[in-house]
Amino acid sequence: MMRVTFIWQEQSGDSWQQRQKQVTTTGDKTVLGLAREADVKIDATCGGRGRCGRCKVLICGPLNEVSESEKQLLAKEELAGGVRLACYARPKGDIQVEIPTSKTELVQILTEGTDQTVPVEPDITKRYLVVEKPQLETPAGDRERLLAALHKSGQPAGKIPVRVMTDLPEVLRRRDHKVTVTCWQDHIVAVESGDTTDELYGLAIDIGTTTVVGGLVDLRQGKELAVAARLNGQAAYGADVISRVEYASNGAAQLRRLQQAVVDTLNGIVADLEKKTGVSPGRISRVVLVGNTCMQHLALGISPTYIARSPYTPAFSQRIDVIAAQLRLDVHPEAVVTFLPNVAGFVGADTIGVVLATGLAKQSRRVVMIDIGTNGELVMSYEGKMVSCSTAAGPAFEGAQISSGMRAGEGAIEFVEIDQDMDSLVIGGTRPRGICGSGLIDLVAELLRVGIIDQTGRLQDAAEVDGLSPQLLDRIRPGEMGNEFVVAWADATADGQDIVLTQKDIRELQLAKGAIRAGTKILQKMLGIEDDDIDELLLAGAFGNYIRKESAMGMGLLPTIPLDRIRSVGNAARVGARLCLISQASLEEASRVASEIEYVELSGRPDFQEAFMDAMLFPPNTLSSQDSTEIDKKVPRDQAV
Amino acid sequence: MMRVTFIWQEQSGDSWQQRQKQVTTTGDKTVLGLAREADVKIDATCGGRGRCGRCKVLICGPLNEVSESEKQLLAKEELAGGVRLACYARPKGDIQVEIPTSKTELVQILTEGTDQTVPVEPDITKRYLVVEKPQLETPAGDRERLLAALHKSGQPAGKIPVRVMTDLPEVLRRRDHKVTVTCWQDHIVAVESGDTTDELYGLAIDIGTTTVVGGLVDLRQGKELAVAARLNGQAAYGADVISRVEYASNGAAQLRRLQQAVVDTLNGIVADLEKKTGVSPGRISRVVLVGNTCMQHLALGISPTYIARSPYTPAFSQRIDVIAAQLRLDVHPEAVVTFLPNVAGFVGADTIGVVLATGLAKQSRRVVMIDIGTNGELVMSYEGKMVSCSTAAGPAFEGAQISSGMRAGEGAIEFVEIDQDMDSLVIGGTRPRGICGSGLIDLVAELLRVGIIDQTGRLQDAAEVDGLSPQLLDRIRPGEMGNEFVVAWADATADGQDIVLTQKDIRELQLAKGAIRAGTKILQKMLGIEDDDIDELLLAGAFGNYIRKESAMGMGLLPTIPLDRIRSVGNAARVGARLCLISQASLEEASRVASEIEYVELSGRPDFQEAFMDAMLFPPNTLSSQDSTEIDKKVPRDQAV
Repeated sequence: MMRVTFIWQEQSGDSWQQRQKQVTTTGDKTVLGLAREADVKIDATCGGRGRCGRCKVLICGPLNEVSESEKQLLAKEELAGGVRLACYARPKGDIQVEIPTSKTELVQILTEGTDQTVPVEPDITKRYLVVEKPQLETPAGDRERLLAALHKSGQPAGKIPVRVMTDLPEVLRRRDHKVTVTCWQDHIVAVESGDTTDELYGLAIDIGTTTVVGGLVDLRQGKELAVAARLNGQAAYGADVISRVEYASNGAAQLRRLQQAVVDTLNGIVADLEKKTGVSPGRISRVVLVGNTCMQHLALGISPTYIARSPYTPAFSQRIDVIAAQLRLDVHPEAVVTFLPNVAGFVGADTIGVVLATGLAKQSRRVVMIDIGTNGELVMSYEGKMVSCSTAAGPAFEGAQISSGMRAGEGAIEFVEIDQDMDSLVIGGTRPRGICGSGLIDLVAELLRVGIIDQTGRLQDAAEVDGLSPQLLDRIRPGEMGNEFVVAWADATADGQDIVLTQKDIRELQLAKGAIRAGTKILQKMLGIEDDDIDELLLAGAFGNYIRKESAMGMGLLPTIPLDRIRSVGNAARVGARLCLISQASLEEASRVASEIEYVELSGRPDFQEAFMDAMLFPPNTLSSQDSTEIDKKVPRDQAV
Repeated sequence: MMRVTFIWQEQSGDSWQQRQKQVTTTGDKTVLGLAREADVKIDATCGGRGRCGRCKVLICGPLNEVSESEKQLLAKEELAGGVRLACYARPKGDIQVEIPTSKTELVQILTEGTDQTVPVEPDITKRYLVVEKPQLETPAGDRERLLAALHKSGQPAGKIPVRVMTDLPEVLRRRDHKVTVTCWQDHIVAVESGDTTDELYGLAIDIGTTTVVGGLVDLRQGKELAVAARLNGQAAYGADVISRVEYASNGAAQLRRLQQAVVDTLNGIVADLEKKTGVSPGRISRVVLVGNTCMQHLALGISPTYIARSPYTPAFSQRIDVIAAQLRLDVHPEAVVTFLPNVAGFVGADTIGVVLATGLAKQSRRVVMIDIGTNGELVMSYEGKMVSCSTAAGPAFEGAQISSGMRAGEGAIEFVEIDQDMDSLVIGGTRPRGICGSGLIDLVAELLRVGIIDQTGRLQDAAEVDGLSPQLLDRIRPGEMGNEFVVAWADATADGQDIVLTQKDIRELQLAKGAIRAGTKILQKMLGIEDDDIDELLLAGAFGNYIRKESAMGMGLLPTIPLDRIRSVGNAARVGARLCLISQASLEEASRVASEIEYVELSGRPDFQEAFMDAMLFPPNTLSSQDSTEIDKKVPRDQAV
């Protein structure tokens, strides 16, 4: 008969107490099996099938041989230290089983448009330790005794940064050598007096070229406690990626300035989050960050020059981990900040984030993801194979380089419908000041539908269009280069000037939509997917939330598919960052995805130019045959091609 | 018949060229054997006996099985990457053998008082790499292509810090993707354009409580190019270790101030070294540092509070590696700064340095090392066993707490002889201002010899001493507490005041010498060594250089042994740092020594107080029986005990 003694820690009030239970056995049972019989809890995500490697226990006493699976699932140091998997270990005599304290909880992460379920297992952990007190006879240092206690707790190795060493003697002695250690890999982020295992915070950030959004996440629950957004402080140095690359390429001082600008923005967000939650910055011990490749470079202060020059090479593509203090990021100075991997110079970590959040990598259906910004990032997935590309759409969809264009702020026309006359909605309900991206797409789609714009993009003369109301005819007038269309008359606008759409504006939009549509077509061609074959089309990014699907399809920006197959997934990039923050598995998946996505450099393909020329034309006006409920009553008109 | 093709790099002018040589073989020879036959050089320190693990080669083609020794000597990544040891690998078909470039050279490091020979194999290396250029089709980042080239060169893994990433794109492109990478373990210290393998500099530093000394070392040759010394800037916050600990314990701001003070001193030394050699600070890529345990804590900005309180626990005892930028040390910001391990709170890395420099750990003879300062650090070695202790000698030997005491600067009496009258030498040849440590020891030894001081340390009345000259009798006069001895008369001193030795001064010196002598006795007792058994006594530190051996022995500071067994080894601590700087093996030995030295906490031993009381007495005046040539003519006098 063999005695098996289980020992574990149990929380009682705000302290931990050691508990133990003894059972006897004669048979050839596993430690996990015996624990279950004895009602002693040992974590085993895989249900004891020897796959998850989570049922680690520290065993003293005679056991069966170490299995091959354990050799794979356990680190050498763990095996050497007596760690075994409870689902494999079988007692061969009296043994003592120490069960490490760990908390795992499954939560459902709801994202706008997608729901990925991941276990809450961040790559950062806290351990409560009782450190041996110093003695006159053994002059071992505080660090060495702490590391010994850490090792005993099952963490094989640890490096304590000098910054944490600074007050380690005081921290150890404040609560009688009882401390909580925050570990990331072998990096010790923090040592705190007493038991602080009940709090662990992280930050998930999406650095957009325009907007930076950060969410404070409770890493024990996996829940996002608050979100804050600020405009990217780099905007002062250029609105788009290319102009920032150019500025940064002027020299080291300029590069540093851009870095500082975005770090200031991030620190502002951290301050906002503190106001919302009361969690002070120093308590944030993990950060995961996504952004396009250029934003990632600039946030790290790394020269982005060659991203913008053929062959468009980033300084790094795989993930980067850096200490917060080095970025001057106002969280715990030893917090590890992870920049997710990039696919290429213009397909960045934000795209990886979207892929993770939407589960794109796991799709067996044919799914297309389009993220429209200054660059359109496209990912197409079919049976685990993923191809991606980036197309330089230009900032037209963001209202830039459009005569009356503006960002989606107060006074922007964001919605347009044409019947007898033009009807529109203005953000904030004020007098209009200009048109934003979604308004532009609506406007062009409607002008195409009623025949004021033809398939080549020409703004027709009033005389060329049949059956228009006098109000609409009135709006067409000659402009500098070709005709222009008056969107709002001076007497109704904020600044007393007509808001117009010029022929040049339409050409800009044709270039932008042509680039994105051509990119999609090249990817479709690579995977052999026709428009009809597309099972789902995901629109990512804030823009994807506001765009009217039927207008986007009407102007030929999207493949022609039933509208109900199109879904907006919102700020999925940051959701991806959050998944990586709370789940080590997601973080590892991010690297796998980045290496598996096939990147297609469009400028290197002879068929791209052709597809681009083709895609610049607007589609034949066949919308009436689509199952659009909103506009199917409107009769398309003949158009000169 | 099998073909074996050797490929290696050879330096030609300032570039490297690939060379190759092909041989054929039929037998079962090792790659190393074949290389030797072909006159192709492969490094093998152990002579091919499979022990040193240096004959690493990268082999493509069929080979014998990997041996157990190779599994031990090679990293997993190396084995997976096709690296084998040439002394074990045997071709089983046509193979190609790539030989990594490495430079090993033995130089003799001459130190004052000792000569240790170590191979110049620093733990930091430079590799010249030709990195693959980026291509439109493969979007791999600059970092990833650099790491691939590094991996191919035989370095299994590398982490490029963000600071090095900053201008990596420019560095790569400046010389057509040809770069030199400086590696320390997996930390990449620097990436430079072109081939810079012909220079590699390091810094060996000894932070003394009073003086900081740094040497610039050419890590390719192992030679010290220049040495610079400055007073420790912390002196403003207290002359000795304990007062600095007290100051630092006042709060974080005070601790930071002390750290900054010594870092400023170090940066001053770096600037001095630049003036002497023309080597700019940024070109220094490795630093090894010794100092007593407290100085090490303060230089790192780590709280030393508990070093000074029982049980005298340091915050760290094992070695610490830290990035220069984190210390704000003005060398290459990513240079690794190593603080050698400490033995205990009062036996620090400086002692480890002395042990390394003197080869103490390798001694089979009975050797005693005494480093006299405010604390006396003692190490005794016999047949590989080492014991150590520290005794709080107090600052008397540094001239502090002595009425006319002063540091060994201009105007200090440094040498005293008594015949008919007192004779002395003054540093700088000026009028005397006070007495320094070596002068004090001389003076007391001489006063003991002529009977003016008795064995209990009492300054006799003039009437009690027989046979003194009138001049000497004149110098004895009543003072505040007991008698005093006039060392120099007011009319001959710099400030027109008598320079005297008081009864209290003698008590201070008795306490100091008693502490050191008692420490030595306890260690002797532990190893069972009588005075006669001591084969060699090493006096370390600057003080050991200036002290007169016969006086030190005469006053009972040292064990009574023949004078020719006593040797001054000068600043051996810094020599130890230099050994570690140029030899990885020495660095590893430092850690081994630190863990092997048995530390004896004297305050925990009941026999110490007794030994201390005993050792405070001066020895019976038996010097005439010693083989001292200088003073053997002087007749000892009877003394009241």
